Amino acid sequence: MCLLIVERVSCELGGKYIVRVKKMTDCQGDAEGAKSPLELYEQLTAQGDEVRTLKTAKADKAEIDAAVQLLLKLKVGYKQMTGQDFKAGCPPSENSVAPNNGPAAVDADDEDTVDPWNVSTSNAKGVDYDKLIVRFGSSKIDKELVDRIEKVLGQKPHRFLRRGIFFSHRDMQQVLDAYEKHKSFYLYTGRGPSSEAMHVGHLIPFIFTKWLQDVFDIPLVIQMTDDEKYLWKDLTLEDCHHFAVENAKDIIACGFDVNKTFIFSDLDYMGATPEFYRNVVKIQKHVTFNQVKGIFGFTDSDCIGKISFPAIQAAPSFSSSFPQIFKGRKDIQCLIPCAIDQDPYFRMTRDVAPRIGYPKPALLHSTFFPALQGAQTKMSASDANSSIFLTDTPKQLKNKVNKHAFSGGKDTVEEHRKYGGNPDIDVAFMYLTFFLEDDEQLEKIRQDYTSGALLTGELKKILIETLQPMIAEHQERRKQVTDETVKQFMTPRPLNFNF
Amino acid sequence: MCLLIVERVSCELGGKYIVRVKKMTDCQGDAEGAKSPLELYEQLTAQGDEVRTLKTAKADKAEIDAAVQLLLKLKVGYKQMTGQDFKAGCPPSENSVAPNNGPAAVDADDEDTVDPWNVSTSNAKGVDYDKLIVRFGSSKIDKELVDRIEKVLGQKPHRFLRRGIFFSHRDMQQVLDAYEKHKSFYLYTGRGPSSEAMHVGHLIPFIFTKWLQDVFDIPLVIQMTDDEKYLWKDLTLEDCHHFAVENAKDIIACGFDVNKTFIFSDLDYMGATPEFYRNVVKIQKHVTFNQVKGIFGFTDSDCIGKISFPAIQAAPSFSSSFPQIFKGRKDIQCLIPCAIDQDPYFRMTRDVAPRIGYPKPALLHSTFFPALQGAQTKMSASDANSSIFLTDTPKQLKNKVNKHAFSGGKDTVEEHRKYGGNPDIDVAFMYLTFFLEDDEQLEKIRQDYTSGALLTGELKKILIETLQPMIAEHQERRKQVTDETVKQFMTPRPLNFNF
Repeated sequence: MCLLIVERVSCELGGKYIVRVKKMTDCQGDAEGAKSPLELYEQLTAQGDEVRTLKTAKADKAEIDAAVQLLLKLKVGYKQMTGQDFKAGCPPSENSVAPNNGPAAVDADDEDTVDPWNVSTSNAKGVDYDKLIVRFGSSKIDKELVDRIEKVLGQKPHRFLRRGIFFSHRDMQQVLDAYEKHKSFYLYTGRGPSSEAMHVGHLIPFIFTKWLQDVFDIPLVIQMTDDEKYLWKDLTLEDCHHFAVENAKDIIACGFDVNKTFIFSDLDYMGATPEFYRNVVKIQKHVTFNQVKGIFGFTDSDCIGKISFPAIQAAPSFSSSFPQIFKGRKDIQCLIPCAIDQDPYFRMTRDVAPRIGYPKPALLHSTFFPALQGAQTKMSASDANSSIFLTDTPKQLKNKVNKHAFSGGKDTVEEHRKYGGNPDIDVAFMYLTFFLEDDEQLEKIRQDYTSGALLTGELKKILIETLQPMIAEHQERRKQVTDETVKQFMTPRPLNFNF
Repeated sequence: MCLLIVERVSCELGGKYIVRVKKMTDCQGDAEGAKSPLELYEQLTAQGDEVRTLKTAKADKAEIDAAVQLLLKLKVGYKQMTGQDFKAGCPPSENSVAPNNGPAAVDADDEDTVDPWNVSTSNAKGVDYDKLIVRFGSSKIDKELVDRIEKVLGQKPHRFLRRGIFFSHRDMQQVLDAYEKHKSFYLYTGRGPSSEAMHVGHLIPFIFTKWLQDVFDIPLVIQMTDDEKYLWKDLTLEDCHHFAVENAKDIIACGFDVNKTFIFSDLDYMGATPEFYRNVVKIQKHVTFNQVKGIFGFTDSDCIGKISFPAIQAAPSFSSSFPQIFKGRKDIQCLIPCAIDQDPYFRMTRDVAPRIGYPKPALLHSTFFPALQGAQTKMSASDANSSIFLTDTPKQLKNKVNKHAFSGGKDTVEEHRKYGGNPDIDVAFMYLTFFLEDDEQLEKIRQDYTSGALLTGELKKILIETLQPMIAEHQERRKQVTDETVKQFMTPRPLNFNF
């Protein structure tokens, strides 16, 4: 297949267009068959450029995804042919040979896209989180920090900490210092309610936040960014607000304490508390378009609502946004557990904080919850086949896992027994790292799958049997959440803490 | 004096700079003395370019003002030398001769700057409002419309209408149709509270709005954009909110009916009424950065608060922003009396309205209230000598008028008696057109001043005697305005109208 990519480069001075035409050949359906390693290298380089061009041009998600998929396919082919990982700028050596141990996982490269609206990588293991820590300038949650958390709390850290699912932080040491000195702080997390359907991946920050609330015994605010979803999606305000309330039910079903938790819809709370708007305006005065362009990639064609929205996600990081809870105090530090893709908002927030006289929020960053199809992208509610929904029946769940969960196993039982499976790219195994509490059992599953003793079907069965009761219990708890309960959680009010 | 102007023109494509160096000679202090008309024409053209360059580069106001002043001086010299107005692109004819009737007023040209933050012109008569109507695409308030207003109301139109002070409109015929059919509409105007000090020019829209409220008997909402002032000025939120409340007292002193008027501070009202924020977000979704860049001249270095602010000034144009008053109805049309510099906000609003299912607001535009120094710029509270404040004592007022009010009279009594004065550039006369109710008396003053029968000192005395009781009465009424009254006006509540 031959693709013609036409780029228009405009020059402001002359007002003329320069048209570049690139010719590109897909690796499949190419009658010429086998390519040389160098030809494949060149094709990969061109495809990498193509992905970058599409991302820069903010092309359709589907188009970008297709280009990334092709890139991934090419990389797998390249590694099979040369035994080397593709590295941009490093052509293959002359004597490249293919390895003989089945399909290889492709190493991470610089193509990872991580921002609040897009997460994708060409690496089957998922995003390279170590690189992300460097890129974002955060700190790794290392063994030393996990040990300190255990010591300070006097109890075993949550499995998300033990297993590197929450893997990165900002100023967590400072939060622990505060806790040791009995200084107040509070938790802030949130959700963008883009549909009624929440999936298991959406629960990750809430499961962890619930644990943090339990162990630290501190106030928690949960922002439902219904305004954001209205601005970004083709939805009405009414839809977005409805989704906020429906999603709040799922969040409440995670077991939060109504006396310690305030859940708010932006569309409601902005109109209920002048202090919130005042903080939004303060932040908006201290951030330029140049800055949000750099941080979020906004363009001149974006609506002014998107451009100013980051201030609205930033504002709950400051305790004075909640006068009902903190009685006007503006010095209470905030700890934000969230997925790493939300970090750009809080990098901006931390930059602004000292300039408006507020403490910087601390952060705990999680990895992404992978799509059923693999860790190249995160689970997305807009793709039903990529997700296990909180409303799925036991049968639907079972079918989805069996049908769609990307396997790190080999094609035949014989091969699998011989070579073993690869848990690092196996979605069922990844999900178990999120939800199976027992560390020893998890380690045994890893070993058995790697050795080939455990087959893909058996691994999937363990996952299904882990998820089915978990989802059923969630559904049961959600049923108990009445409109009255939601209203209680969502009413601006004092919580059971003295400030 | 020799000025070197260096322009850098950047080209995005090549990343290179082209440096142009222009040499420019000031018309004063030039030893060579007399220039030819063509030389002066070329100098004027270069100075016009310079003004444009400075404005485009958003140079300091002082720098722009200086350049505009020089341009004005050059124009006066040009007209004196050639007897013609300077017109860009039209060099002087060979046989240009100077007229012999004293200094001439300079005609308006394309240098007028009119936007919500800057008003300036090089024309001593003030901005060329006919050109502004063409540039903004509004309609002139002609005799036919004024006659229709008189007929519909069954009473004499306000002097601001009779005298072309409200000179431009959008959809006013439609408002009159609605009034004749007993269809509801409402009034919306506002003020940016940048200091405690309001001057007489600030009263113009409120005097006129009060008249509109009286004759139409309709609800009125008055927006105090304290958030805007915080974003644009070096002020704290507390300052801006304090100014909003103080300014509200002056507005209330204009005589508004508390049963028909709602005054609100953005900082308060945004946090009091979710419907207001919902409309703000709706507008923000439908306006891009490209659009506000084109309309308001924002740049990438502007803060995101400024960039998104136009939506906040737009939102009160829609009746659903005031559920307390209009009981959720979103179909009530709005009529906005304001100075013409606010039109960019409402051009944007009118563009958005049909796309979010709301009626377009109608508008009535006023001219600017000139600074004491002359109609090249409007009265500004930040320049104490340019303004007559509502707090001025009778003596202060008298001194300011006598000392600072730019005169259209001649330098000596003899010359004045011989040539007469020019009321079109005389600030005292201009102020009388705003405040002297009696048309015949005003016309007589014009004639006497033009003929030379009335001297500048006498004209100023008439103005002083008109303003002193007006200001004293305002001060008396303002004293009556208690904090309780302000609170009443500023509480979101139903008004005395059924919707």
